[in-house]
Amino acid sequence: MKKYLKEHEWSIIEEGFDPENHEVSESVFSIGNGHMGQRANFEETYSGDSLQGSYMAGVYYPDKTRVGWWKNGYPEYFAKVLNSTNWIGLNIIIDGEELDLYQAKVHEFVRELNMKEGYLQRTFVAELQNGKQVKVQATRFVSIVDKEIGALKYDITPINFSGTLNLTSYLDGDIKNKDANYDEKFWDPVNTWINDNQMSVTLKTKKLDFHFCSTVETQIFINGEKQKISAKPEEKLKFTSLNYDLPLTKDVTTTIYKYAANVTNRDHDTDRLETVGKTVLSQAVAKGFDVLKQEQADAWALKWRDSDIIIEGDVAAQQGIRFNIFQLNQTYTGEDERLNIGPKGFTGEKYGGSTYWDTEAYCLPFYLATADQEIARNLLIYRYNHLEKAKENARKLGFSKGALYPMVTMNGEECHNEWEITFEEIHRNGAIAYAIYNYVNYTGDQSYLGEYGIEVLIEISRFWEERVNYVPAKDVYMMLGVTGPNEYENNVDNNWYTNRIASWTLEYTIEVLDHLKATDLELYQTWIDKLELKPEEVNQWKDIINKMYYPIDEERNIFLQQDNFLNKEIIPVAELDKKHLPLNQNWSWDRILRSCFIKQADVLQGLYFLNHEFDLDTIRRNFDFYEPITVHESSLSPCVHSILACQLGYKDKAYEMYLRTARLDLDNYNNDTEDGCHTTSMAGTWMSVVQGFGGMKIRDNQLCLNPFIPGNWNSFSFKIVFRGARLMVQVDQEKVTITNESNTPVDLHVYDEQHKLNGNSTLQVAI
Amino acid sequence: MKKYLKEHEWSIIEEGFDPENHEVSESVFSIGNGHMGQRANFEETYSGDSLQGSYMAGVYYPDKTRVGWWKNGYPEYFAKVLNSTNWIGLNIIIDGEELDLYQAKVHEFVRELNMKEGYLQRTFVAELQNGKQVKVQATRFVSIVDKEIGALKYDITPINFSGTLNLTSYLDGDIKNKDANYDEKFWDPVNTWINDNQMSVTLKTKKLDFHFCSTVETQIFINGEKQKISAKPEEKLKFTSLNYDLPLTKDVTTTIYKYAANVTNRDHDTDRLETVGKTVLSQAVAKGFDVLKQEQADAWALKWRDSDIIIEGDVAAQQGIRFNIFQLNQTYTGEDERLNIGPKGFTGEKYGGSTYWDTEAYCLPFYLATADQEIARNLLIYRYNHLEKAKENARKLGFSKGALYPMVTMNGEECHNEWEITFEEIHRNGAIAYAIYNYVNYTGDQSYLGEYGIEVLIEISRFWEERVNYVPAKDVYMMLGVTGPNEYENNVDNNWYTNRIASWTLEYTIEVLDHLKATDLELYQTWIDKLELKPEEVNQWKDIINKMYYPIDEERNIFLQQDNFLNKEIIPVAELDKKHLPLNQNWSWDRILRSCFIKQADVLQGLYFLNHEFDLDTIRRNFDFYEPITVHESSLSPCVHSILACQLGYKDKAYEMYLRTARLDLDNYNNDTEDGCHTTSMAGTWMSVVQGFGGMKIRDNQLCLNPFIPGNWNSFSFKIVFRGARLMVQVDQEKVTITNESNTPVDLHVYDEQHKLNGNSTLQVAI
Repeated sequence: MKKYLKEHEWSIIEEGFDPENHEVSESVFSIGNGHMGQRANFEETYSGDSLQGSYMAGVYYPDKTRVGWWKNGYPEYFAKVLNSTNWIGLNIIIDGEELDLYQAKVHEFVRELNMKEGYLQRTFVAELQNGKQVKVQATRFVSIVDKEIGALKYDITPINFSGTLNLTSYLDGDIKNKDANYDEKFWDPVNTWINDNQMSVTLKTKKLDFHFCSTVETQIFINGEKQKISAKPEEKLKFTSLNYDLPLTKDVTTTIYKYAANVTNRDHDTDRLETVGKTVLSQAVAKGFDVLKQEQADAWALKWRDSDIIIEGDVAAQQGIRFNIFQLNQTYTGEDERLNIGPKGFTGEKYGGSTYWDTEAYCLPFYLATADQEIARNLLIYRYNHLEKAKENARKLGFSKGALYPMVTMNGEECHNEWEITFEEIHRNGAIAYAIYNYVNYTGDQSYLGEYGIEVLIEISRFWEERVNYVPAKDVYMMLGVTGPNEYENNVDNNWYTNRIASWTLEYTIEVLDHLKATDLELYQTWIDKLELKPEEVNQWKDIINKMYYPIDEERNIFLQQDNFLNKEIIPVAELDKKHLPLNQNWSWDRILRSCFIKQADVLQGLYFLNHEFDLDTIRRNFDFYEPITVHESSLSPCVHSILACQLGYKDKAYEMYLRTARLDLDNYNNDTEDGCHTTSMAGTWMSVVQGFGGMKIRDNQLCLNPFIPGNWNSFSFKIVFRGARLMVQVDQEKVTITNESNTPVDLHVYDEQHKLNGNSTLQVAI
Repeated sequence: MKKYLKEHEWSIIEEGFDPENHEVSESVFSIGNGHMGQRANFEETYSGDSLQGSYMAGVYYPDKTRVGWWKNGYPEYFAKVLNSTNWIGLNIIIDGEELDLYQAKVHEFVRELNMKEGYLQRTFVAELQNGKQVKVQATRFVSIVDKEIGALKYDITPINFSGTLNLTSYLDGDIKNKDANYDEKFWDPVNTWINDNQMSVTLKTKKLDFHFCSTVETQIFINGEKQKISAKPEEKLKFTSLNYDLPLTKDVTTTIYKYAANVTNRDHDTDRLETVGKTVLSQAVAKGFDVLKQEQADAWALKWRDSDIIIEGDVAAQQGIRFNIFQLNQTYTGEDERLNIGPKGFTGEKYGGSTYWDTEAYCLPFYLATADQEIARNLLIYRYNHLEKAKENARKLGFSKGALYPMVTMNGEECHNEWEITFEEIHRNGAIAYAIYNYVNYTGDQSYLGEYGIEVLIEISRFWEERVNYVPAKDVYMMLGVTGPNEYENNVDNNWYTNRIASWTLEYTIEVLDHLKATDLELYQTWIDKLELKPEEVNQWKDIINKMYYPIDEERNIFLQQDNFLNKEIIPVAELDKKHLPLNQNWSWDRILRSCFIKQADVLQGLYFLNHEFDLDTIRRNFDFYEPITVHESSLSPCVHSILACQLGYKDKAYEMYLRTARLDLDNYNNDTEDGCHTTSMAGTWMSVVQGFGGMKIRDNQLCLNPFIPGNWNSFSFKIVFRGARLMVQVDQEKVTITNESNTPVDLHVYDEQHKLNGNSTLQVAI
């Protein structure tokens, strides 16, 4: 953990330059627009540690699997998001010396991620080794209006001299993924061209035939006057550049604009890519930097209108939640159903892949409540479209029927290669079923079940049916050899959460079948026929539901994380010497496995998902047992604990857990933000405000609110859409104010009392 | 499994050439002498699939670890036996066409590994694409008399033409390990030279500074006359060659001799290596091929005198056991205490490393009974010398005291990187303690305990003390998160074998301490002081011994492999469809883990090691439960089962298991012999004859024999050395004949009756 960023309601601000923090800042200050994104690399040369990173959504590479020891069933490749052409690059040579903040003395350095308007800005004064000082301001963004456009503006002003500027503006496509398994390059050259002040590099992936064309125009202004200067062009393999000799005059600003059109054959015909690139570029140039930037600010204003959370009286908390909402909106917009939410978004390469159970378990609620219903539905359809691959995956592992969704995927195929996770962390299948329930429960859109949902539910149920193990001596069904959400235990028998979510899937599938039969017999019969669902199968599911084995501790009256959990020595985290934390950086893996310490919510994840099944005392007993032995070394852990703590009235714990999730990357809690931000867990932060402090649930098609405000906050507010209504919920220390900003009336419960809130009206309830 | 080799008492013979079998043959026909070894590659160019492999004992490289996902505690590197300069290489061009058995038509092909005399020979007629036919006979060996000398003789006789032979004799040091993790080369060049018909290549490893110098002389004879032909020399990086133009005359034989001196700075000063190489080479040349070969035959005759096993009436069984004894003697001679027995010997690269628990558990008995006592003692001292590294290893994994020996090692440091094995397969520590007991029990050499053994035992005991886990609710000690010998279960709690061998180590350590105190109080006190052994520690060990938890099944009255074993579905292997076998090539890893199927003896390994603790009924009940669910997919499995089956009088099972271990590589049972032979398990084959069919045990310092002969054998005999006596034990269907070939009288039990056998006398006992 390291705090070096300034607290501010709307911006992330770094003052003063310390190369030690640079790679963390490159992650935190990343910009993106759902189509592409970029780490906060410097435009000019930087010779210190840096991960240059520019990523295009959905453009990936099947990197050959790397393992120490092969296990049957491992996938042949790991799909990696591709690091792509560097379009921001500038080489700045001032009187013969290259501008490089690792070599220069840096004064007045400020890096700002302006979340309100969606741009990255950096200002500094560099004192070169030759004593010359220049002031620089660099601003850039990728447009959320025109998704294929990026733009940057780079101002240089000599402070204590006049001289020369040798400037190279380049496109470098000779890029390697830092996380390539065998240090291979994934891009092949297709074409390059330079025409006057425009240049272009087209690449294609060595496999899968993704084409990516980046086309840029460089413009130079001195003192506001556009310059017509001829440049020396250079073309190399996967590389183009324009080199300019310019005068530098003391106190006079030279401005470099770089407009980029980044287009791929995911969206356009391969053979028209260069043409499209030129067209897009010409649109960007026609608008110009200032217009593009204003459009960006306007578009972000709309995003904030729908999804902002305002916390008054706690700048750190405010900044944290806005940062999370901002990054989520930068990563996934829901417009393209082929895309999903990678664990690092566009902020780094680690973990590769794009889709984990994080999407269903943590991201879906955010998009359900803050965006059009179609977007959440697209996240479900993404999995529906992968169902055949999930069935193949189950076959590959030896199951005769059913579907096992992959742990990590890009196109539906499993990418991950750790046996205890790939083959055993099968609870993910339950989260995919649960997401269907969650969507229908929130939106009331039953049609999804008949159109898509039922097929996914049946195939997942079939998997569970075959995966459980009947033990005649005890007349129970068990689930052997699994890894639960707590990855600090592996290959255990009867993980309570997995057993429960499996049985719940069977219960819900039967419920949906019954509902479909009752409401649309014809459609019901169509599915029965198509999927050849036999009555024996459903009977078998019922038998499993009845006889599923759940490990419990009778003495404490709690659910047991797994059969043998109580053979471990139970020690509260608070009693551990701090030097051991985080365990995953200080303890050997076997020591972690043998210990009682829990990485992330496991039994408690079940109590969160299936909250309505359990009374408060049950939740409290389990929380009181498990929370103190949880180390929260997964970014997905604190939010669930925060929500349950709110429910139990544990104010301090709730606030502690909230801050930990909200400022995970800003304060680099897990000491790994240089690898990229924890994008998916950011949705968990949103959950901990809305479902935790706001106490929002949907029960029996009704919105329920049960707000709770931390003592040090003046107020907080959030916005949700619910079945056509747009609501703002504001909570201060005295009251809850709910404003219906739409015309749609809504029935709701606040603190267990029923209310009706008409369109465009306000309801106040005392706390 | 594939049988293509001819059965023969003394030789391994391949008739007819099939490229499909070539890589398996390259392994099986390997030659070695404990100092160096080589796969049975062809001397001439071969363009088909082949693993060129030439290895020098103890010369290794720390190859950077490759894993998919790093776990804390993993080693930084994996020590690999190095593939080294190819000194056998010849290019043979006949009338412009290269001799290459992958391209030519091959007639009359015979490859023979002559085990009696220790050489490899190959004869064939090749019909080139130009129609020309040549007859070739190639013979080679590495000397067990002069360990640094190798020699080959290569005869070429044109059958249907006269023409020209363009011959290149080369030394190629530009060699890569097939199993390199990142496709890197491990050798750097040092020097090359050519002088007349001699040439030399010296290399050094990129890390660790091993130097290897190979110096060869090439001689050419036509029709028995030595030729003086000047050759075209060529030197490249890490490569030298001599190129000759020779006439070929129909029916006249051209003979190429190649003598090699292979020397390393493990045995000589680095700066004198080339000089030593020249000297060794000159000795080889002075003796000449025929003398060297005769010396080889004589030396092997002595080896066979001491270690041969003769089986009459079963050629397949005879060939199998001789092959195993031959390979063991080729791999390890015990002369160099820095060396150990790699799992593939010099026959392949897989698994790297050199030392596994195989050495203690399976190899030690062979060397104890067939070689000088010093050799077995050297195997123990090897581990003693690694004790400090084993303590470091335990510290690295978070233990405050004690020693954990590595799973795989070259120099005492852990090399393996699979968490469930590296960190959890800790029963290996028990095998190292058991080997000390085994050595003392067999030899009666108590002095080893006071000199070395006690220190190793105490440090291992300290590890167990910290590794167990006290469970107050049950007042027992448990061992959580281990992998037993059966690697088809991982990360289980309370593996019976591990718990038992751990507790046994504590018991034996206390016994040794008591013995030492009683016999040599001063030495005892020296160790107590040096190791700072406190009475509380010993008391704690006693508490663990008393309260160790052992999982059992009361219904069946058997020991349970681990706590949850009976939650699995128990299915005999015989009921599995054959297409599923071997499981490790047909089932996903998780399916294997969830199944009841056992890779190798686990509970039964304990019943074998601690055989004297258990009555026959206990052994029978456990054998009857576990053997039917064991798939024997470790080469170390059948021998233990064979021995126990002998003890239980299960004749058919004993013979089945014996054949499986004896002919594992000859018949390629596990379908992986192309990677190299299963060298360490070969000692298990010897065990299954001597300890199984021979029923040999040492009890209370007495040799006990309990022979048993398979129905289809006429007789079998084996030799052992026991406390100064040299015995031959011969068993036929009527009687056991024991001949004392030494002057030392010996007391022994045969079938539980006490006998005294004077020197140079014979005892006959009816079966």
